[in-house]
Amino acid sequence: MELDISVRAKVLREEFWKELLESVVPFWECYSPDKAYGGYFSCLDRDGSVFDTDKFLWMQGRELWCFSHLFNHVERKEAWLDLARSGADFLRKHGKAENGDYYFSLDREGKPLVQPYNIFSDCFCAAGLAEYAKASGEAWAEKSAADTWRRIQERKANPKGVWTKQVPGSRPVRTMAMAMINLWMAEVFDSVLDPGELEPVVSSSIDDVLSRHVDWERQAVFERVLATEGRPQGMDGRLLSPGHALETLWFILAAERRRGGDPDRIEKTAQVMLWTAQRGWDHKFGGFYYYRDYENKPTEKLEADMKLWWVHAEALCAFLIAHRMTGRIEFWDWFERTWEWTKAHFPDPEYGEWYGYLDRRGDPALTLKGGKWKGMFHTPRALLVCAQLLGEYGR
Amino acid sequence: MELDISVRAKVLREEFWKELLESVVPFWECYSPDKAYGGYFSCLDRDGSVFDTDKFLWMQGRELWCFSHLFNHVERKEAWLDLARSGADFLRKHGKAENGDYYFSLDREGKPLVQPYNIFSDCFCAAGLAEYAKASGEAWAEKSAADTWRRIQERKANPKGVWTKQVPGSRPVRTMAMAMINLWMAEVFDSVLDPGELEPVVSSSIDDVLSRHVDWERQAVFERVLATEGRPQGMDGRLLSPGHALETLWFILAAERRRGGDPDRIEKTAQVMLWTAQRGWDHKFGGFYYYRDYENKPTEKLEADMKLWWVHAEALCAFLIAHRMTGRIEFWDWFERTWEWTKAHFPDPEYGEWYGYLDRRGDPALTLKGGKWKGMFHTPRALLVCAQLLGEYGR
Repeated sequence: MELDISVRAKVLREEFWKELLESVVPFWECYSPDKAYGGYFSCLDRDGSVFDTDKFLWMQGRELWCFSHLFNHVERKEAWLDLARSGADFLRKHGKAENGDYYFSLDREGKPLVQPYNIFSDCFCAAGLAEYAKASGEAWAEKSAADTWRRIQERKANPKGVWTKQVPGSRPVRTMAMAMINLWMAEVFDSVLDPGELEPVVSSSIDDVLSRHVDWERQAVFERVLATEGRPQGMDGRLLSPGHALETLWFILAAERRRGGDPDRIEKTAQVMLWTAQRGWDHKFGGFYYYRDYENKPTEKLEADMKLWWVHAEALCAFLIAHRMTGRIEFWDWFERTWEWTKAHFPDPEYGEWYGYLDRRGDPALTLKGGKWKGMFHTPRALLVCAQLLGEYGR
Repeated sequence: MELDISVRAKVLREEFWKELLESVVPFWECYSPDKAYGGYFSCLDRDGSVFDTDKFLWMQGRELWCFSHLFNHVERKEAWLDLARSGADFLRKHGKAENGDYYFSLDREGKPLVQPYNIFSDCFCAAGLAEYAKASGEAWAEKSAADTWRRIQERKANPKGVWTKQVPGSRPVRTMAMAMINLWMAEVFDSVLDPGELEPVVSSSIDDVLSRHVDWERQAVFERVLATEGRPQGMDGRLLSPGHALETLWFILAAERRRGGDPDRIEKTAQVMLWTAQRGWDHKFGGFYYYRDYENKPTEKLEADMKLWWVHAEALCAFLIAHRMTGRIEFWDWFERTWEWTKAHFPDPEYGEWYGYLDRRGDPALTLKGGKWKGMFHTPRALLVCAQLLGEYGR
């Protein structure tokens, strides 16, 4: 069996590298750079044509991270570093509001449009600049990234600040997103900040997920919990996001792998993935749902049964790293099943990259390859992570 | 031809009354009242079971309006007035924040959850109380409704207030929603406020829609315009919402009908409906899209090609009132086509009411009958408006 998987892994490894370097990366290299003003267009239609020129800071930070990461981990191509520099300079010149937080969006030239209401703009820009600092050695980028990291840690208990719509003291709902992003950022900041600064954030994030968001009795990962104890009433407290759960769980496994973590916790974390996969898979049409209700009641999300690219990208990483770390065949099977469905529905061989938003049956609901919430990020990150993991088989 | 339509109108009239009084109204009468704390549950699954007990002020105000309106315009049933009173008292006790604006949501008992960030909470609660005042004669309700109306008119130039995320002076985008809701509210407030107070709001709203949001050259109604001139760049400036356009256009026709308006403007407004219908109809699977891009580029809306109940409810009203007012057969044809598709996909004969959210093909994507954004409103309002209009044929 192990031999079969090694052979298969070698085939898949080639497939993933090919998809990454011949379809996905070229799409963004070709269509997203704004040669006039710097930074990147993210609103790209199927054929790469720009359908909106606004610059969303989530997307700017992510693409900056991605080109820098390719330079750092795939090949030291000057073209990638140049593309990264264009994004980094754009962020330096235009990204931050006076209070030091990143705007949510800018116009093409860099003039601010939407206030810094969203802490994830800061997270993605900080991660982008940290990765860029490793690629370029530019000290300003490292300092800026570290400053933003620290500001995020100060703000994380109250991430929305003045934009909080929840009435104070009413029902303190906390989502899993902050723990998730901190786990990923800690990996990106690995050689930028001291372990003494990163490790407490990693530990508390893992603890937050495993002791608050995972319900071991109900065998599910809940997106929203109360800051106090338990979960909010009703649909908020029952909301499941299989993609988000799988993404967070694989960040935990990756963190444990780096620090040589506790085997029992690794085993348990992987087990939660299986529960999530079983509950999140669409047994009729295939693919993972975007949202589910724990009791199969309706969610408030119109897009609940759509199939999203990032959900599948993160699921691939999750199952593969879990297989590497536990050796359990169920994870390999889930990886194969997910890749089969993904490959059949998301990639666009004609123009490159993946569709982002499919309907439940797997047909594209939107033709776009990038938009306000889809950029150069989940697809290439997952393809690279999987290609690297697949390379470990049969060594 | 006119004779044929009269005969057909009589048949349809019975159908609409039956759907209203035997399927839709009983569903809400039966499942939505919160007998313990007053007000209404709006999160109702297919069979009427409550899947969340929070109270969203949009939905509270709308259901209050609806029961009051049934009492005022269908039958003076004490049960309807009692149900309205339960909603009115709940709003009086719990609805408003200290600054006089309505919260966005409360918990079941009435404790505030989400701040008054959304002016439409005020609009629906004001309309609900105005209609209730007409039904009950209670002076406090009339005064409260009038106060809120005036506050809305003061706030309407900057409806989001401190919650505005747009950077000041950057790109002052204005949506059509404020003009739309003012047109409807003005009808509701007809006997509550003086014509001298209502008429300027009606006139300026009509002017806003016809001279700013309708692009006569491009033959389309654009959701978003710049407060200054023209439309914003990119996807925001190209966004079309066929349901919203049709709803707004029929409010204009209804207002013109009440005030005996200019025949040329009536003709032109009706013509815009035809453009909207042609562009908004899904020529492959039938039904109206939720959102479209004027240039057929992607929108940022994941749910763009879904089929929503309210879009179809408003389209029915639009085509029927346009046929009554212009006599053009195209409107009758659109009315029949829309009703045929609507009847085949939205109503649930087993449990009553309509599904809210269908996928592009017309299958329910969510099983809910009510939620955070769907309550007792568009379906019964449209059925009643259409039943009344159908009653005018052959007189």
